Amino acid sequence: MFGVTILGNNSAIPTPTRHPTSQAVYIDDQVLLLDCGEGTQMQMHRYKIKRSKINYIFISHLHGDHYFGLIGLLNSFALIGRKDDLHLFAPEPLYGLIDLQMQLADSEFPYTIHRYPLKEEGEIAHSNTFTVKCFRVKHRIECWGFAIMQKQKLRKLNIEEVKKHLIPTAAYYSIKKGEDYMTSEGNIIPNKLLTIDPPKGKVYAYCADTLFTDSFLHHIADADMIYHESTYLKDMEEKAFKRFHSTAEQAATIARRANAKRLLIGHFSSKYEFLEPFESEARQVFENTEIAREGVTYLLK
Amino acid sequence: MFGVTILGNNSAIPTPTRHPTSQAVYIDDQVLLLDCGEGTQMQMHRYKIKRSKINYIFISHLHGDHYFGLIGLLNSFALIGRKDDLHLFAPEPLYGLIDLQMQLADSEFPYTIHRYPLKEEGEIAHSNTFTVKCFRVKHRIECWGFAIMQKQKLRKLNIEEVKKHLIPTAAYYSIKKGEDYMTSEGNIIPNKLLTIDPPKGKVYAYCADTLFTDSFLHHIADADMIYHESTYLKDMEEKAFKRFHSTAEQAATIARRANAKRLLIGHFSSKYEFLEPFESEARQVFENTEIAREGVTYLLK
Repeated sequence: MFGVTILGNNSAIPTPTRHPTSQAVYIDDQVLLLDCGEGTQMQMHRYKIKRSKINYIFISHLHGDHYFGLIGLLNSFALIGRKDDLHLFAPEPLYGLIDLQMQLADSEFPYTIHRYPLKEEGEIAHSNTFTVKCFRVKHRIECWGFAIMQKQKLRKLNIEEVKKHLIPTAAYYSIKKGEDYMTSEGNIIPNKLLTIDPPKGKVYAYCADTLFTDSFLHHIADADMIYHESTYLKDMEEKAFKRFHSTAEQAATIARRANAKRLLIGHFSSKYEFLEPFESEARQVFENTEIAREGVTYLLK
Repeated sequence: MFGVTILGNNSAIPTPTRHPTSQAVYIDDQVLLLDCGEGTQMQMHRYKIKRSKINYIFISHLHGDHYFGLIGLLNSFALIGRKDDLHLFAPEPLYGLIDLQMQLADSEFPYTIHRYPLKEEGEIAHSNTFTVKCFRVKHRIECWGFAIMQKQKLRKLNIEEVKKHLIPTAAYYSIKKGEDYMTSEGNIIPNKLLTIDPPKGKVYAYCADTLFTDSFLHHIADADMIYHESTYLKDMEEKAFKRFHSTAEQAATIARRANAKRLLIGHFSSKYEFLEPFESEARQVFENTEIAREGVTYLLK
């Protein structure tokens, strides 16, 4: 499974029904947390996200609506007796802030937090099942986007060829992993002949707070799903620009230019009570757009 | 009106239905906020606490479940364009933390925060209608309780005497304020004769995280309502002591020794699903005990 559950789809001021930014990305047996606004741990309760599955947290930038819930979550991990290591990717000053808060509470974490200060674009995390790259987006302060790539599964056997060469089933696994096959006579049958390409790993690209810019297009090109902020509607384009935010139409333009398959939009200004106009404005430019609704899981199919 | 609305009644780990500590004290036209755990601003939305009425915030100590929601609230004040001064009473290091968070966000508050580092016991705030005193409670780190005293209203006229001395109504207000009356002949009629004592101002005493101790009894003596933490039930008394917390029975013992009229208990450990046993254990010692239920307003009558 590869999908994202929206925990918060609002910009900075929470409303009674919308929360600051956070997303839980399910990828096989892991949950990756993208940003962690205030109340994220309560939202995790509400939407039944298992805290124990979270081993990777990524913080895009140090505006509070993207990280004020982090220290509470880390604290709760401690209080429920977490032992597993946690991998935290964030702008560097966040680590000092966490240290200070722990020091003031005269407390220590009973588990290890591995710190990965975001400094350069490129691969920052990987496991058996995924790779994460970070890239710069353009906001008022340093801000990062993240692309989560599902790793390619094993290669698929070309059954016809495998049978033709009388290959024993015991050899299938190494062939699926990409190895050539050597017959008992010492002949080498190249892997290329025995397998076909597996389905490509899917990509989810999370473009955190940013103004409308092509500058990171190459990092999100051909993504299966893009999340792009859309704080305002079109009539507020100037305000969006001034505040380093985007409109729904601009988010859709980025999705189209990136040749994405699907677009999620979020980070809506609290001034909007109804969100439907965001979807309709975006769909004029990029049909396959959906509003990131809290509690909904969007699968990368 | 003088009353307290409970915004969070749980200890550190929030549960789906209980939140970390925060209380909104209504006193005439003001709302005083006591502690501000994560999610307090969302709870304020839920229970219709008007943010604009909050001009005084008191933070008992720097364990996260008592202040992690503060920076988000201060931020929201800024985003909704607050102009009114805010008075913040807290252990001194909190101010540095707020400064650091604002600096990392490259932001400034558009309103003034007056800082009152808690250092000595005694009066820390007062207005036309209330006085607040702080006192030390005993926790693992520096921790403060707060006593909120409603100011005495004007004195009551002794109508019989006032009529006997033919005092004109124009003089009533100054007499109610406590002044003597001088007749046109130059005779002084002492205020004592013309008025009777008004009802005493009520007192609400908030005893934040503390172990069971008499040390602050004199600060809360005869209070109309005491809030005292009761993290555990009686069978966990040893654990309570080790963690600098109290049991329900101990909270009730303090209320009885303080000769309080009424007791609210809260800060329940997340391990308890049902809260009724807290009430029954406490009532064995102090009958007039109630569980501090989130969303409920307890009036000082």
